[in-house]
Amino acid sequence: MSKWIDLNCDMGEGFGVYALGADDKVMPFITSANIACGFHGGDPTIMKATVRMAENLDVRIGAHPGLPDLQGFGRRDMRLSPQEAADFVVYQMGALQAFTVTRKLQHVKPHGALYNMGAADEKLARAIAETVAKFDADIILVGLSGSAWIEAGRKAGVRVASEVFADRAYNPNGTLVSRNLPGAVIHNAKEVIDRATRMAAKGTVITIDGKEISVHADTICLHGDTPGVEVLAKKLNDGLRAAGIDVKPLVLLALK
Amino acid sequence: MSKWIDLNCDMGEGFGVYALGADDKVMPFITSANIACGFHGGDPTIMKATVRMAENLDVRIGAHPGLPDLQGFGRRDMRLSPQEAADFVVYQMGALQAFTVTRKLQHVKPHGALYNMGAADEKLARAIAETVAKFDADIILVGLSGSAWIEAGRKAGVRVASEVFADRAYNPNGTLVSRNLPGAVIHNAKEVIDRATRMAAKGTVITIDGKEISVHADTICLHGDTPGVEVLAKKLNDGLRAAGIDVKPLVLLALK
Amino acid sequence: MSKWIDLNCDMGEGFGVYALGADDKVMPFITSANIACGFHGGDPTIMKATVRMAENLDVRIGAHPGLPDLQGFGRRDMRLSPQEAADFVVYQMGALQAFTVTRKLQHVKPHGALYNMGAADEKLARAIAETVAKFDADIILVGLSGSAWIEAGRKAGVRVASEVFADRAYNPNGTLVSRNLPGAVIHNAKEVIDRATRMAAKGTVITIDGKEISVHADTICLHGDTPGVEVLAKKLNDGLRAAGIDVKPLVLLALK
Amino acid sequence: MSKWIDLNCDMGEGFGVYALGADDKVMPFITSANIACGFHGGDPTIMKATVRMAENLDVRIGAHPGLPDLQGFGRRDMRLSPQEAADFVVYQMGALQAFTVTRKLQHVKPHGALYNMGAADEKLARAIAETVAKFDADIILVGLSGSAWIEAGRKAGVRVASEVFADRAYNPNGTLVSRNLPGAVIHNAKEVIDRATRMAAKGTVITIDGKEISVHADTICLHGDTPGVEVLAKKLNDGLRAAGIDVKPLVLLALK
Repeated sequence: MSKWIDLNCDMGEGFGVYALGADDKVMPFITSANIACGFHGGDPTIMKATVRMAENLDVRIGAHPGLPDLQGFGRRDMRLSPQEAADFVVYQMGALQAFTVTRKLQHVKPHGALYNMGAADEKLARAIAETVAKFDADIILVGLSGSAWIEAGRKAGVRVASEVFADRAYNPNGTLVSRNLPGAVIHNAKEVIDRATRMAAKGTVITIDGKEISVHADTICLHGDTPGVEVLAKKLNDGLRAAGIDVKPLVLLALK
Repeated sequence: MSKWIDLNCDMGEGFGVYALGADDKVMPFITSANIACGFHGGDPTIMKATVRMAENLDVRIGAHPGLPDLQGFGRRDMRLSPQEAADFVVYQMGALQAFTVTRKLQHVKPHGALYNMGAADEKLARAIAETVAKFDADIILVGLSGSAWIEAGRKAGVRVASEVFADRAYNPNGTLVSRNLPGAVIHNAKEVIDRATRMAAKGTVITIDGKEISVHADTICLHGDTPGVEVLAKKLNDGLRAAGIDVKPLVLLALK
Repeated sequence: MSKWIDLNCDMGEGFGVYALGADDKVMPFITSANIACGFHGGDPTIMKATVRMAENLDVRIGAHPGLPDLQGFGRRDMRLSPQEAADFVVYQMGALQAFTVTRKLQHVKPHGALYNMGAADEKLARAIAETVAKFDADIILVGLSGSAWIEAGRKAGVRVASEVFADRAYNPNGTLVSRNLPGAVIHNAKEVIDRATRMAAKGTVITIDGKEISVHADTICLHGDTPGVEVLAKKLNDGLRAAGIDVKPLVLLALK
Repeated sequence: MSKWIDLNCDMGEGFGVYALGADDKVMPFITSANIACGFHGGDPTIMKATVRMAENLDVRIGAHPGLPDLQGFGRRDMRLSPQEAADFVVYQMGALQAFTVTRKLQHVKPHGALYNMGAADEKLARAIAETVAKFDADIILVGLSGSAWIEAGRKAGVRVASEVFADRAYNPNGTLVSRNLPGAVIHNAKEVIDRATRMAAKGTVITIDGKEISVHADTICLHGDTPGVEVLAKKLNDGLRAAGIDVKPLVLLALK
C-alpha cells in the first residue's frame, strides 16, 4: 500500500482585533493553508502575517475566498449571479497573491456558503472554475469530493482536488450528514485518524449506517475552530504517516 | 521645443448600483487610468469592467488604492501606522492586478486622504513606496510633484512620476491653493490648457500671485467629477498635441 | 365615489458621496417617505437630511430597512434566520427614529430582497411583524398587497398597509409580472394614473391578459429611480385628486 | 465618610462569529454597561443579547458609539466634521435604544478614538453633547474626568459623569500616563482597589511621581479586555463596598 494525502485547514480568519482559530498551533501539521481574503474574514495585515507563517513552515498557500458578508462569516447563502461570484473570487485571489513571496497560489478553496452553493450549482461552480483557470492555469481548485466543483473544474480545464472530511459522518449517497443531525460530527481522535487513513489508503469511507462506500480523497480538511484542533492535527499527521500514507501538499500530488 | 506628458484620471469609483464620474467619455482622451480598488470606491465587478474599458482603448492601468472608508470616499484622514497603510496598498494592487490581461500594473497612485497624508508624511510615503517596490520593481509610483512621495519613491528604488494639476491654482511655494480659498479651482478650459502646456513644455506654472515658478510635471490629473470633464479631456489632449507636446503613458516617458 | 390612497416612495438611498434618486423633486408629491437606514443604502448624514426634508413638507416618515448588503443594494437574497432579520429591522428602525423630531415612525416598509423574501415566507414576515409590533404598537407595516406580509402583520397585531404598483403589470393571480418579461413595467404616465385611480377607487386592476381582478390598495409605490419620476409623481398626485381620490398619509387612512 | 461611585464596562463588542471580552462574567459586578452599537464592534444580534443580559441583572444601559471603523475597532483617529460625528452618535444611540425594554438609555460614552478625540477637541465634544441633549434630555454623557467632554456637556445642558481609571497611572497634571510608558497600567488588584477607593472617597489620586492630586470621579472604568477582569470586577465591587463606598448606577448618583 502506498498512498498520499494533503492536509488542509482554513487560516487567517480573524479580523482587526478579533482573533479566531489557533493558526500558529495547527500550521506545523498541515500541508496546505486556505487563507481568508478579507470578505468573510481576514484583513490585509492578518493576511500578510498568515502568509508569512505558512511560508516559514513551507506550508503551501491557497486562497479561501468568501462571500462579502463579514457579519455572517460568509456562511449565509446569497443569491449572486455566477459572474458576480467569479469576480469576487478573482479579487480575493489577487489580493492574497500580492502578499506571497512567490506570487503564486497553490490552490483556491471557496469558503462557507460559497463552497456549499457551488457544490450544488454547476453553473456557479463552472463560472468560478473558468475564472480560476484564466487567473492561473497551474492553480488547483479544491472542492467537495463528488460535488459539482470537481466536474466544473475539469470542464474548465483547471486541476481539481477532492476534499473529504474525516471528522464528519457520511450519508450512503456520499454526501455529508447535516450538522443538525446526531452523529454528524466525529469527536474521537482515533476514529478520525482511522477514517482519514481509510479514505487515503483505500479510497473508502464507512457511512453513518455502516456501509463502506467509495470516496475520492485528495485532501482532508481540518476545522480550525474544533476545540483541540492543534492536538488533533498533530495526531492525524502522525497517524497517517504511521499508516504509510505520504502527507504532502496538493501541488506534489498526482491529482487525477 | 519637444516635451511629453501623461494624462491621468481616477476611474471606476462607483460602487454597486452607485455610479460616479463619466469614465466611458473620458477614457478615450487619457493615457493612464487610476482604477479604484474597492476601499474608497469600486467593487470587483466595476473593477473588471473598468480594466476592460482601459485595455480596449490601450489606456495604461494603475491602482488607485484608498483608505478603508467607503462612506467618506477615502477622503477623511485616518491615523494608520505606515505598515498598516502599506498592507492596504498591497491588498488593493493585488486585487486590481488580478483583473488585468497582462497581470502588470503600470503605476499606483494613492487616493484622497492617503495621497495627501503621504505627501506630507515621509515615513508613511516611504513605507508605501518600499512595499510598492517589493510588489513589482517596474511599477511607477505617482505622487504630488515636489511632495514626500517623490523623495520616498526614489529612496525606495521605485520609479516615480510627478503629478501636477492644471486646473488648480498654485501657491508661491509650489503647493496647491486650498480648495476653500477663492480662485483655487480654474474652470476656464483655455486657461487650463495653457497652464498644462506651460507645465509640460517649460516646466513652470504661474502662481496665484502672478509669479512663474518651476514645477516638475510628468503627468496631469483630470478630475473625473468636474462637470464637463469629457469635453475638457478632449480639448486638453488636443491642445497639448497642437502645442507640440507628446501625450503618452507614463511607462513610455523618460521619467527622471 | 369617495376613496383615499397613500403615495409612498423610497428615499435617502444614497451613500456618502454617492447620490441616488431625485428625493427633493419627488418629496413634495408623496405622502409617505420610506427612508433607507444605512444597510442597503443611506448613512447617518443622509438619513438626517432626508428626515428633515420630509418633516418640512409634512411627509410622513417610515423606516426602509434592508439587508446588510450595500454592494448589492439589498437586492440579493440572503439566507437569514427570521430572528436575525428581525434584529436587523429593529436596529434600523431605532437608528432612523433617532433623527425624527417626533421620535415616532409612521410605518416600516422592508426593502428589496427582504421585502420579496418576506412576501413569500410567512415565518420571516411573522418574525419581523412581531418585532415591529413590540417596537411600537402604533406603527404600520407596509407589505405587498395579498402577500404573506399582510397576514403576518395582522396575526402579530400590527396595523398593515397593502402596497400596489401602478406602473407594474399584474398576473391573473394578482402577483406582479416579472421585470424580465415584456410589458412588466408601464411607462406611459396616463396609463399609470388610470391604473392608480382604478386601484384606489374601485379596488381592481386590469391584468396583463386583460382581466379585471380585485386588489387591495392602501398605498401606491413610486419608484424613485424611474427616469422622470418627479414629473410622474406630480401628475399622479394631481390625477388622483382630480379623480376624487383623497391622497393622504397612511396614518390618516382607515386601514382595514 | 459617605461616598458613591458607578462601575462601568464596555460590553457587546464582538461581531458576528467573533467573540470579545467576558461580558457574562463581568456584568454581575458593574452598575453601568456601555454597549457597542455596530460601528467599531457589536451587531444587532449581539446588541440585543447584551441588552437582555444587562436588563436581567438590573445593570443600566448606555450607548457606546464608535467610529465607522470595524477593522480598526474604532481606535484609529478619523478626521470627521463635528456634525458628521454627532450624526454617527445619534444613529448608534437610536439603534441601541430600540433593543431596550424601557426605550431609555441611562448614558452615552463615546468609544476609543472618538472618546479621545472629543476629550481634546471642544468643538467635537460640544457638537456631540448638543446632539445628545436633543436626543434625550435625561441622558448622561460620560467623558474623561477633567476633559473637554465635561465642559462641553455642561454647556450643552446635558448631565455629565466624570470617568476615572483606577488601573491607569496619572500624570501630575491629571492626564493619563500614555500606555507606551512603563508603569502606565496597574496590574495589582489590591492597588487598583485602593486607588478606586481613594478616588471615590477622597476625590484624589496619587500621580506617577507620588503626589496626591484632585480628581473628580463619578464612574470607574473596567477594561473588559484585561485578563482576569471578572475577578478584578468582583474584588473591586466588594472592596469599594467594604470601604463604605456605595456602588450604584449613574442615574442614581448626585452628579454635579
